[in-house]
This record gives sequence, C-alpha cells and structure tokens, in this order.
Amino acid sequence: MNETSEFYLFYKHIAKFSSITEGEFDDIMSYFSKITFKKGDNLAKLGEKVNHTYWISKGLAVSNYIDNLGKEHIMQFANEGCWITDQQAFYNQTIAIFDIVCLEQTEAISISFENREKLCAAIPKMENFFRRKANDSFVKQQKRLLTYMANDATERFNLLLKEYPDLIQRISKRKLAAYLGVSRETLSRLKR
Amino acid sequence: MNETSEFYLFYKHIAKFSSITEGEFDDIMSYFSKITFKKGDNLAKLGEKVNHTYWISKGLAVSNYIDNLGKEHIMQFANEGCWITDQQAFYNQTIAIFDIVCLEQTEAISISFENREKLCAAIPKMENFFRRKANDSFVKQQKRLLTYMANDATERFNLLLKEYPDLIQRISKRKLAAYLGVSRETLSRLKR
Repeated sequence: MNETSEFYLFYKHIAKFSSITEGEFDDIMSYFSKITFKKGDNLAKLGEKVNHTYWISKGLAVSNYIDNLGKEHIMQFANEGCWITDQQAFYNQTIAIFDIVCLEQTEAISISFENREKLCAAIPKMENFFRRKANDSFVKQQKRLLTYMANDATERFNLLLKEYPDLIQRISKRKLAAYLGVSRETLSRLKR
Repeated sequence: MNETSEFYLFYKHIAKFSSITEGEFDDIMSYFSKITFKKGDNLAKLGEKVNHTYWISKGLAVSNYIDNLGKEHIMQFANEGCWITDQQAFYNQTIAIFDIVCLEQTEAISISFENREKLCAAIPKMENFFRRKANDSFVKQQKRLLTYMANDATERFNLLLKEYPDLIQRISKRKLAAYLGVSRETLSRLKR
C-alpha cells in the first residue's frame, strides 16, 4: 500500500486496536466505500434514518445538537483519523438526534449498518476491533462527561487540545465555545 | 436452569444482545466467578489496579468520583442487571479514578480482564455480546452527557428514573443529588 494513501492510514488505524495483516485488510475493505463530501454536506440529518458510520481520512465534520430551549451544542468534532455518526440512531437503527455537517471538503471511508454486521460475522478480528474501539470511545466520552460533572471547562478544553491537537486553527471561536459549553468571554479566558 | 437463579438472569441478559444457547452458556460461565460483597466493600479503589468487571445479580454498587476541588460526584449506580467497573482502568489496565462501593450486600458475577479477552477469543458470540453492550453503554452515557451540555437536570432525573425505576427508594437524597449534580434544594423541586 502507498503509505500516504487514505487506505494505508485506515489500515494503521485498525491495526492499532486489532492485529490484522495487509492481506486481511483487502478483504475488509470490500465492506467499506470511499466517499467525498463538499463543505456544508450532511453525513446525517436530524430526524432522518442513519445508515452509515464514517471514518474521516481528510477534512472535518461536526455533530450538532439543539437542546429543548433551541440552544446549539457541539457533540463531536471528527477530523483525520476519527469516526463519526449519530451513534444512537446508527446502532439502534432509529432516527438522528444530531445534524452532522462537513466544515471542510471531507473524504471518508464509510460502512453501512448492514455491512458492519456482516463484516463482524465474517472476520472475527473486525468484531474484536469494533469492541475495542467502542470501549475506547466510551472511556473518552466518560472523561468529557466528568468535566461537565465537575463543571471544569478548563479541563474540557485541555482534553480537546489533547484529542485534536490541530483542530483549534480550523474552527471558529463560536464553534469552539459551542463544543466547550462556554460563552465567548469564558473562552477568551481559557485560551490565555 | 432455575428461572430465579442469578445464572438464569445473567443468561437472559446476554441473550438480549447476542443469540446464545443454554449449552453455550455453560461454557461461557466457566470464565466467570460468583462473588458476594458486604455493604461497604469496594469493587474498585481509587489509585489501585482494576482487574475485574462485575455484573450485579443482587444488591447495589456505586462509583464515586472526587473532582479537583474535592467535591464528590456519582458516576454510576449499578443495581440488578447492570455492569460496573472503573472502565478506563479496566479496559486500559491502568489505575482507578473511581471508588466503587457496595451500598447494600451485593452478589455479582465477575470476570477478569484476562478471562474476558480469552472468552472473546474462544467464543465469538461473546465478542459480539461485548461489542453490542459497549455500543449500548456509549449511547446511554451520551444521553446523560447531553443533559449536562443542555444543563437540564430534569431530563437527567427522568433518564435515571427510566434506567433504574426502583432505585430512588434505595438511595439517600444526598447520593441522588450527587448523581444528578444538583443541590438538595434543586432535588426537592425535581422530585415534585
């Protein structure tokens, strides 16, 4: 594989969690598709079915949540190397509670719910991969939850910097504040 | 199996996510142990290694988190039918950030990290089970996170009632407030 191709990066990502060979990877890739989105395109739409989960190889997507009072929040950013979907809607095959939108032109490797189930049944190492990845995602989300429980926006900002070191330069202050759950004024204080 | 035994309840729990037969269940159970804890016993201790995850068949355990300012929060309750461990420490085999304590005499079915890996490798249906369970736990945790992002303690209380319908009678108001992240005064208002 060309070591700069998106497939090689995806292979390295999977191999970080589960020990697959390059030969097995060819089989695995037959369950995935490559897809390109323009800036502003939706990966999921509030109230609609969610059939795919996406691994971003280039670009940036964001999942937006509108609360009962109409206030916007950002659940997740996904740049290079991250997975994104409306998890509740995808895993349970219900309708989306998030709008997922590309903030840049975005290239992704996608898999449908049906293909993901088939892949896990056909290739045990991929079931193993998705189990480990799910446990890892749970722990990362729990760390973010703890910052809300402790009302610690500084720690939340530090987690973001650690998780997405090059993201800050690519998003607006408004989006950063909507992710951190702080006002623009508090954000200026955090960034100092 | 005796339909009131803890093993039958555990079998039904696993079968809810992955289609195992009673015959396969006997094999599966050889990886688990049954354990009884007294009220006040620890399932995990802050700063120590975490070797097991627990499925509660009877009783009640709670994971406590102390923030940087010394304030106590409750990450999770686990009563009959729930799994509990310090997830970060267990999955990554690092040290605990939570204290997990039994609030009642508690009976659990436990599995070590090593046995869980062996079980997943030996019995693909259990890898499937743990993947589905992990996705399910992620979604439940995300719902709780959304209530913090939206600063909606009422919704957080409603989620608790839905997830643990008989819990309220078994825990103190102080613990309920520490789970919801509200003062005792706000709690009285929510419970009306």
